[in-house]
Amino acid sequence: MLQGNAIIGQSGGPTSVINASLCGVIQTCLKHPEAIEKIYGMRYGIEGFMEELLIDLGAQRPDIVEALKTTPSSALGSCRHKMQEQDFAPVLELLKKHNIRYYFLIGGNDTMDTIHRIEAYCRKEGYDLIGVGIPKTVDNDLFATDHTPGFGSAARYVALSVMQAGMLARDMKRVDQFVVFQTVGRSAGWLPAAAACAKKNEDDAPHIILVPERPFEKERFLAEVKAAHQKYGWVSIVCGEGVCYADGTPISATTTNDRFGNKEFGAMGGTSAAISLHQMISKEFGWRGEFQVVESLQMCAADRAVPSDIEEAWACGARAVELAVSSVSGVMVTIERQSSAPYAWSLGTAPLKDVALGEKPMPDEFICEDRYYVTEACLEYLRPLIGELPTYARFEL
Amino acid sequence: MLQGNAIIGQSGGPTSVINASLCGVIQTCLKHPEAIEKIYGMRYGIEGFMEELLIDLGAQRPDIVEALKTTPSSALGSCRHKMQEQDFAPVLELLKKHNIRYYFLIGGNDTMDTIHRIEAYCRKEGYDLIGVGIPKTVDNDLFATDHTPGFGSAARYVALSVMQAGMLARDMKRVDQFVVFQTVGRSAGWLPAAAACAKKNEDDAPHIILVPERPFEKERFLAEVKAAHQKYGWVSIVCGEGVCYADGTPISATTTNDRFGNKEFGAMGGTSAAISLHQMISKEFGWRGEFQVVESLQMCAADRAVPSDIEEAWACGARAVELAVSSVSGVMVTIERQSSAPYAWSLGTAPLKDVALGEKPMPDEFICEDRYYVTEACLEYLRPLIGELPTYARFEL
Repeated sequence: MLQGNAIIGQSGGPTSVINASLCGVIQTCLKHPEAIEKIYGMRYGIEGFMEELLIDLGAQRPDIVEALKTTPSSALGSCRHKMQEQDFAPVLELLKKHNIRYYFLIGGNDTMDTIHRIEAYCRKEGYDLIGVGIPKTVDNDLFATDHTPGFGSAARYVALSVMQAGMLARDMKRVDQFVVFQTVGRSAGWLPAAAACAKKNEDDAPHIILVPERPFEKERFLAEVKAAHQKYGWVSIVCGEGVCYADGTPISATTTNDRFGNKEFGAMGGTSAAISLHQMISKEFGWRGEFQVVESLQMCAADRAVPSDIEEAWACGARAVELAVSSVSGVMVTIERQSSAPYAWSLGTAPLKDVALGEKPMPDEFICEDRYYVTEACLEYLRPLIGELPTYARFEL
Repeated sequence: MLQGNAIIGQSGGPTSVINASLCGVIQTCLKHPEAIEKIYGMRYGIEGFMEELLIDLGAQRPDIVEALKTTPSSALGSCRHKMQEQDFAPVLELLKKHNIRYYFLIGGNDTMDTIHRIEAYCRKEGYDLIGVGIPKTVDNDLFATDHTPGFGSAARYVALSVMQAGMLARDMKRVDQFVVFQTVGRSAGWLPAAAACAKKNEDDAPHIILVPERPFEKERFLAEVKAAHQKYGWVSIVCGEGVCYADGTPISATTTNDRFGNKEFGAMGGTSAAISLHQMISKEFGWRGEFQVVESLQMCAADRAVPSDIEEAWACGARAVELAVSSVSGVMVTIERQSSAPYAWSLGTAPLKDVALGEKPMPDEFICEDRYYVTEACLEYLRPLIGELPTYARFEL
């Protein structure tokens, strides 16, 4: 058994439960003094590590560590640094300097790539290092795991928002006829798809779901909007931020003028898919309506976290340490689904290099062919991750 | 005691607790069979009433009525119809036709004006009608009441969102340096002000609060943004949707080009104050960052409703009926604050004509003179309405 110090970092966009994974790592490291002497936290991911911004997590108050389970965002701070060739030598020097033998990172595919490359570099240089990854992303686009910690809670936020705002649009249908809700998730449609869990009755929101896996066709979209409006008197649309036309142009590719008439090309970046749709509908039908761009709010709403998501996130962190002290290296902890109803899960592992490869889109069988919506198979996959949604009163008419 | 039927309607934008007021009205009407025979609900406010869209609320299942307490939006449907002179005669005919003697509406100042005018018209025409108003608006801009049902829950949504997204911006400060959160509230700054409750430590969000009561000065604003960024490494800004320059131009007054280069003047209406600020900051400092436009989500997030807000909303509805069956007419139920700490309240009344006059802005002593922020007096007013906010873990560094 390797003996030395451990380090843990957080990387990429935060979630509501990434700190629960951190908690799992810290609490489990403290149970293995035979292997792990000190447990360091790196501030701001690998970027902070290279600046030697370390904190002694074993010296933190246990109640603070425990409270991480319900604390959103990245308590250690995060970064989006992509490792460069020239980074490896100084990283190895720091690992040696602090006698770090256990290396943990919580993150997405880029993060798994980082661990993979650091571990490979150390092996080549003859420095014994165990590296284990802990999955995290609200986008749910990691390979080899049934889903990622953080997704369920973000998905619940999306479903709750679409459900509640849909009721409001329904009850205000004589004034506001449509609502467009935008989710994050550049290339995968898991989050917009999650909105479908909000629908209990046929007329409930959402009516149209746009995922980045499918090209956007304006005429077809407007026809679906019109049909939904004729049927219900209002329309609820959910779109992923990265939805594109068939030629790859994002639907968010508008230009804006400021109040002095200056053009602002792309100032709104990818955050304006909903605004584009809103304008398209307003222009076509002359309706009022609203767009909702919540951005990082869906990543950090701890009060809406799903209990099983917190539990899984903690377990992934804890398992990473158990694996490491059993000399398993070069893997990411995965979640394996045993059954959907009742929901049951267990933990597994996948080689880091397999996860590092790219982003996992939604499978074809989860996306409707004949309309902008998701299938029943998709809903079966999603429902247990989101947890039970509230039931609201509705008059019998 | 007047004997006959009662009618209840909902008007204007929904809230998380407007159905709790409806529940209070229904449950209390059912306790007064000596005065009230039937209790009708008007679908889509006065607009639906004029189309005779009525439902028999006494025939609804009691469990559905009870569940209204925790159901967001307007279960009866709402409208924004402003009564015209030619509306009064047909309204009176319908009141006579259905023998309606008790008239209740839940809404804001326009709604109170509607009841006031209908009651006056009936009196002039010799038809006995008792009209009582029940306050409602997330904007909190009604005169004569300490605050309005619906505000506390929306304010909590704002404070929670700014708090959570602020933590995320703090932890991601090496990538995203600012976040702009926009609230509803065209002319009153109560909702952006509520974000201040999120701040526990000096560096916590929010750092800058823009209320519509004060003119926007671009240079001053950018100087404050720069100062906050120098101090904390990131900036949290909250703005009301209706913030204007000194000359009355809304800061949201941008024009947009669609992807084909066509200009879209004002297509985004008042919903883009945050986008204007985002662009202003991006342009001046070259920073990334994000804007958050949640629109009606803050009005209908029942899972974030404040228990005392639900309780007060129900009590206002119940009291309206008690007053009416005691032959009190022409008033709106008000909430009177007995103390802030501990929070204690009671109910009162105000003449409808006083409430109908206009919108209540924040008092001067609630707004800082030397910076874009709110005062301690404002926080003392707000805190009990929002309820206790969660405490999240933070490492001791």
